[in-house]
Amino acid sequence: MSSLGQEMHALCRELFPIYRSITGNGFRQSLSILKTHLPNLKIVEVPSGTKCFDWEVPREWNIRDAYIINPDGHKICDFKKNNLHVLGYSTPIDRTVSLDELQEHLYSLPDQPDAIPYVTSYYKERWGFCITHKDREQLKQGAYRVYIDSDLKDGFLTYGELTIPGERSDEILLSSYLCHPSMANNELSGPVVTTFLAKWIIGRERRKYTYRIVIIPETIGSITYLSRNYKDMKDKVIAGFNVTCVGDERAYSYLPSRQGNTLSDKAALHVLHHLHPDFVAYSFLDRASDERQYCSPGIDLPVCSVMRTKYSCYPEYHTSLDDLKLVTPAGLFGGYEVLKKAIECLELNERLRTTVYCEPQLGKRGLYPTVSTRSTGFQVKNMLNLLAYSDGELSTLEIAEKINVPLWELAETIETLKREGILDTSE
Amino acid sequence: MSSLGQEMHALCRELFPIYRSITGNGFRQSLSILKTHLPNLKIVEVPSGTKCFDWEVPREWNIRDAYIINPDGHKICDFKKNNLHVLGYSTPIDRTVSLDELQEHLYSLPDQPDAIPYVTSYYKERWGFCITHKDREQLKQGAYRVYIDSDLKDGFLTYGELTIPGERSDEILLSSYLCHPSMANNELSGPVVTTFLAKWIIGRERRKYTYRIVIIPETIGSITYLSRNYKDMKDKVIAGFNVTCVGDERAYSYLPSRQGNTLSDKAALHVLHHLHPDFVAYSFLDRASDERQYCSPGIDLPVCSVMRTKYSCYPEYHTSLDDLKLVTPAGLFGGYEVLKKAIECLELNERLRTTVYCEPQLGKRGLYPTVSTRSTGFQVKNMLNLLAYSDGELSTLEIAEKINVPLWELAETIETLKREGILDTSE
Amino acid sequence: MSSLGQEMHALCRELFPIYRSITGNGFRQSLSILKTHLPNLKIVEVPSGTKCFDWEVPREWNIRDAYIINPDGHKICDFKKNNLHVLGYSTPIDRTVSLDELQEHLYSLPDQPDAIPYVTSYYKERWGFCITHKDREQLKQGAYRVYIDSDLKDGFLTYGELTIPGERSDEILLSSYLCHPSMANNELSGPVVTTFLAKWIIGRERRKYTYRIVIIPETIGSITYLSRNYKDMKDKVIAGFNVTCVGDERAYSYLPSRQGNTLSDKAALHVLHHLHPDFVAYSFLDRASDERQYCSPGIDLPVCSVMRTKYSCYPEYHTSLDDLKLVTPAGLFGGYEVLKKAIECLELNERLRTTVYCEPQLGKRGLYPTVSTRSTGFQVKNMLNLLAYSDGELSTLEIAEKINVPLWELAETIETLKREGILDTSE
Repeated sequence: MSSLGQEMHALCRELFPIYRSITGNGFRQSLSILKTHLPNLKIVEVPSGTKCFDWEVPREWNIRDAYIINPDGHKICDFKKNNLHVLGYSTPIDRTVSLDELQEHLYSLPDQPDAIPYVTSYYKERWGFCITHKDREQLKQGAYRVYIDSDLKDGFLTYGELTIPGERSDEILLSSYLCHPSMANNELSGPVVTTFLAKWIIGRERRKYTYRIVIIPETIGSITYLSRNYKDMKDKVIAGFNVTCVGDERAYSYLPSRQGNTLSDKAALHVLHHLHPDFVAYSFLDRASDERQYCSPGIDLPVCSVMRTKYSCYPEYHTSLDDLKLVTPAGLFGGYEVLKKAIECLELNERLRTTVYCEPQLGKRGLYPTVSTRSTGFQVKNMLNLLAYSDGELSTLEIAEKINVPLWELAETIETLKREGILDTSE
Repeated sequence: MSSLGQEMHALCRELFPIYRSITGNGFRQSLSILKTHLPNLKIVEVPSGTKCFDWEVPREWNIRDAYIINPDGHKICDFKKNNLHVLGYSTPIDRTVSLDELQEHLYSLPDQPDAIPYVTSYYKERWGFCITHKDREQLKQGAYRVYIDSDLKDGFLTYGELTIPGERSDEILLSSYLCHPSMANNELSGPVVTTFLAKWIIGRERRKYTYRIVIIPETIGSITYLSRNYKDMKDKVIAGFNVTCVGDERAYSYLPSRQGNTLSDKAALHVLHHLHPDFVAYSFLDRASDERQYCSPGIDLPVCSVMRTKYSCYPEYHTSLDDLKLVTPAGLFGGYEVLKKAIECLELNERLRTTVYCEPQLGKRGLYPTVSTRSTGFQVKNMLNLLAYSDGELSTLEIAEKINVPLWELAETIETLKREGILDTSE
Repeated sequence: MSSLGQEMHALCRELFPIYRSITGNGFRQSLSILKTHLPNLKIVEVPSGTKCFDWEVPREWNIRDAYIINPDGHKICDFKKNNLHVLGYSTPIDRTVSLDELQEHLYSLPDQPDAIPYVTSYYKERWGFCITHKDREQLKQGAYRVYIDSDLKDGFLTYGELTIPGERSDEILLSSYLCHPSMANNELSGPVVTTFLAKWIIGRERRKYTYRIVIIPETIGSITYLSRNYKDMKDKVIAGFNVTCVGDERAYSYLPSRQGNTLSDKAALHVLHHLHPDFVAYSFLDRASDERQYCSPGIDLPVCSVMRTKYSCYPEYHTSLDDLKLVTPAGLFGGYEVLKKAIECLELNERLRTTVYCEPQLGKRGLYPTVSTRSTGFQVKNMLNLLAYSDGELSTLEIAEKINVPLWELAETIETLKREGILDTSE
């Protein structure tokens, strides 16, 4: 268990230094690392200018280096030391500017003087540097050489896609995004936990559902992906999760789908109620990630989010302080576990019907324990409650919620009662 | 604004001295004053004896004078000084009676010794006087001349009716009653605010709905009106308000329709939640005005009440203390404003659908503000939330309630998004 | 009233000493005593081995005597002194055993050292004695003669059934069980109160519904009964109560049907809200009596329980302490009353429709009281509220709940308004 947390943290560390944006080689390189874990991960390239609903795929941006030489001749805001120093999607520049001019291109956080903020300008051409406020206040008058070796030209938007086939064509969607540079909770935790969930799903003996795993850039990526796949997804996806901010140890959080009562929501809430009853429940109004697209009118996919501490809700968010001390093996493992349990619930969910009227006689089948302890007492009670609600209408997930038992704890009982011919799948 | 309150208060003052009852010349005279504000107000006369469902129009009652001469020769209970002194619908009398006999015809309030109570006897023939309890206790033995110059004979029940046409034949109903003599909150505030709402409606550039304004005597008036119009109203009226007790400054109140969830209720609650969240919510069981008829089984009109302090719920209710000090310009203006906002919400209410899948790209349309302040941030958030729920199912009133923004604050955004072709009416 | 409680308590006392089990002569003898109160009670015998859904009728068990002779030659655990001393369904035995061997066949309650527990072994053949823990601790080494004169052989399961015809073939079910030996709340209170309810029903002038009264052994009895009658019951039963634990004075309790919102539940909650608003509301998950069968999937009868203190929820439960001091005349009368009121509500329940639009003119029909007191004020208010909701959709039980008046207090008003032609049955 703890070793799984360590493995996920190691993958975070491997990915952390790579510079990523919504397009470009850093995204490709990161995807190819995930592909070492998921050999069937398909890498898809969508050309710049491709129309995606109301949007189009932007030009591809790549950057090789960026820094400032201060009047003393020292290199500051060195991209190679911390890639947050450059404004995302900065245009290239190589000029000497006064401090006054430089100030117009600097971004810092007076309230968090030790943090380098994460700032981007995807849709307006600008150049800029991000700097700790403490360092900014030390800057003195003089000539600054500003150097950004980047280019923005026609290329591709890149994403990864993996289909893990199951018995049914009905799908469960896991979507995460890989477009953030060196930050850990938001966002390396999402793609890393998604990768390990995919590995676990591949390793399962039996899969009722097919799994669609997508690793995209946020917003433009989900819009691009949906524009190419939404009809198929609307036909097939019965539940889905946007996997983000699943690596710290502070909290568990839930953000509903737009409808709020989809199968995904039910599974998420069932798991959180049982495992982390003190979880934070947000409103759909608090959304700011890809559920904005997945849940948009006409798309209407049943996608919600189960998180550790939600984006925007922790002080290190979108700064250099969101690092690999904030995200821990235990934090990642906790995020992985709740999503794994939610998937287990979906796999276990079905409608059952008793094959006999009234309560069956459990005694003659040896289903009444011969030694009666508190724990066997609960098992018998759960068994009778499960039978009492197996009317072909309620799903096992709904029954589990009603009788206040985690669905995964009912799995063995369900198997036994099916084997004994007392319960039958009604679908 | 404040000048509108002053104008309404002035109209109250003009109407206040006139003696009104459910029929008679005082009602006609009051209506004709309202007609100076609403020239198209149609005055309708319904003959006594006309069958109205289970009721019939009573005989018309008129009164010219009433008083008592006490044993000292002084005139007391002088109708010309305060018209509440006479029992409503008193039969004529001109006799000298003992104090003992007189007492059987006097009405006073021991708990409110300075108040003349408002008492009527519409459906049983009686004569009587209303008097402050303080004065009553001063009465000494002796001969009292009682004089009431009234008559009750076949005539008419009078009401006012105004149709303000809109783009659609669907109607919004405003109903108020004018049958009370010299009292201010219950009830001159209702017909006066209704008159000014009608003036505002007439002055609007655009009206989606047609408006039906009725000024009637309470109970028998709404029954009479409904008996002549209910089929037409059931076809057309989509929302309506019984306008009463809208003139004091103490509280805002809401009394639901019988169904409780009609469009009127939604509009009323939306306005009150945003403007006066401390409003008092009554039950339909607390009703005692014309919603008794509008919401009766088989009639079932979507009529609720938005009030200031509700009838029966303030100490001055139905006494001479309900005067033009209790009702103020600010009180009337507040009552006017909540009803105006409710009407605005109804006019703004529609079902919208986004024309593109996923979030539209607001940036390329200049809808992302270039300077980002807290207030523009809210605007963008509201815009995205509005888009997220514009699924052709939810109405804008329901969306506004869901995203917790007053609908009137969304109006400009809705216009912009329609103009940009991103939102489309789905009706 | 109080005399009815005394009569019920007297019947409990008459039945108390008889040894009963799920089959056998004690059950027959008890039924025949109930038959002296209900001459039309039909006694039904179902042969051992009869298949009942997943079960079969067990062999019939009878016992004549049982005791232990201790090493001092004294008779202990004497069945004739307290019939709880023998393990229910014990096999016969006549042997001398050591204390060690005896201990394996003794049942006592360390936490309740003065109580003889009630223990049975219906479906596994055993012999045993139940003893107070205090006495058990006094047992010394030596030879014990154990004697049980019982037999278990093919015979019958016996139950009682009574149909009380009404105007309609729709049925109300009252089910209680008589299989417990000398205990009073659980369970002589149930069959005794059921018997007296049946007597009251028989004595009613008018019965809208037909009544099905069944007195059975618990679990196997309801399964047996259902296996022979469920199709007929599913067609006819519109409401039903499992009558159990209705004899002590501590609490009133409610256990819902599986669906939770059946007509039975509505009637039970209406009565309890008005008569005993501090009643204890259990969940269907707390069930442990015949609603397990009546509410099982596919059977789905609208059966709930209204109790005094619920089985399992009082310390004397299933011990010799559940005796005729715990169950009292007042306790029985209280249990009887709530069920009687629930039945009255069902008999009164109907859909009504006003025959006129708007409020009827009550005055001309003399329905406005001429003297107005607080109590007549409530009557008029209730009358108007009743009329306001009589839309042919809501039932009178639902209206009574909505307007917060006990349905039985509306009965006279409903009769009056029907007689006046203002209300009409809409069914």
